[in-house]
Amino acid sequence: MFSGAQFSLYPMTGDFVPVILSSLSALDPYRERLRIETDDLSTLIVGPADDLFPAMRDLHGAASRDGVHCVLSAAVSRGCPGEPDDPRCTPLAPSAHAGSMDERIAAALAAVEAAPETGLTVAAQFSFYPLGAAEHMDEIYACIDFVKRSGVFGRAKNFCTRLDGDAGRVFATLGQAFVAFGAPQAHVALDVTVSANSPSRRG
Amino acid sequence: MFSGAQFSLYPMTGDFVPVILSSLSALDPYRERLRIETDDLSTLIVGPADDLFPAMRDLHGAASRDGVHCVLSAAVSRGCPGEPDDPRCTPLAPSAHAGSMDERIAAALAAVEAAPETGLTVAAQFSFYPLGAAEHMDEIYACIDFVKRSGVFGRAKNFCTRLDGDAGRVFATLGQAFVAFGAPQAHVALDVTVSANSPSRRG
Repeated sequence: MFSGAQFSLYPMTGDFVPVILSSLSALDPYRERLRIETDDLSTLIVGPADDLFPAMRDLHGAASRDGVHCVLSAAVSRGCPGEPDDPRCTPLAPSAHAGSMDERIAAALAAVEAAPETGLTVAAQFSFYPLGAAEHMDEIYACIDFVKRSGVFGRAKNFCTRLDGDAGRVFATLGQAFVAFGAPQAHVALDVTVSANSPSRRG
Repeated sequence: MFSGAQFSLYPMTGDFVPVILSSLSALDPYRERLRIETDDLSTLIVGPADDLFPAMRDLHGAASRDGVHCVLSAAVSRGCPGEPDDPRCTPLAPSAHAGSMDERIAAALAAVEAAPETGLTVAAQFSFYPLGAAEHMDEIYACIDFVKRSGVFGRAKNFCTRLDGDAGRVFATLGQAFVAFGAPQAHVALDVTVSANSPSRRG
């Protein structure tokens, strides 16, 4: 199994470089477990699937803490058959795929319930792509059922689902969508957008 | 068939609102064919699959023309089984799926060759997701073969492929990846990032 993300931070300010640089220390607690590489388009993190969303939550939270409108955009992937297995990616938690679909949804909801509160309100949207499996719509519908009961469900949009709420719960919901739905060894990808401090009215 | 995109523009300046608003007229030539809806997270466009990337190219080009570092991020989708058919989405051009894989790649390359030059250099990366088909890696590899010969191939990255070059050719390559690969009626999604005027060295 190989898991990781390509993510970018977009602080909507002329001072975007110092905002990004000053937030990078938020990744320090994860550096031992994650491989981290940055270029001019995005930052790659490779490591345990259940570590990816907490790392992105903490980085986006740090970049957003001074009130700047800041967006995190990420392509998150696990099980891509084009990538070699990597022991670094061994999950931290037991498999989220044991049991029936109802039990999987209940476990995912319990994980969201246990998420720490951050005090930062965010809006997010994500697309869930389980690849290479004929039953892909079943996993999508189960994931949507989970998200609707997560406490941060916003609304269904074309091509994606909107979430609103505390960043702790929103990132936990995204993380559970990623690890708990789609077959255990399947290639699953998420396209994620998280926005803080937008001056626009919410849609 | 239903086709469209959720995209966002991220101008990295404190004046991001006027930059976005002043670029919207670039969508005027497309308004008759596209359904366009905006909220605080993204803009939805729904219409012919072959119209989506030209519209995003023109909008991103308009927002980037004064030299501001500006990123377009988009989730682009066709054939999602959760969306109803829409006559608005009837393709403008004949099917890009006639013929063998070699012929499909040659036709896609010819379309890129015919793309107008914009004078704006961009860096881009994209992930290609053909959904619900057991042969999804075949279509991914064919798409990668096409992209490597597009003249704007940058490099393979984890989870995505990088492009560099004139925005005309880069968006044409993305558009051909979207319409010409993945089965004709399959659910195909692209996760796209296009960046102009970055102060960072290219990766």
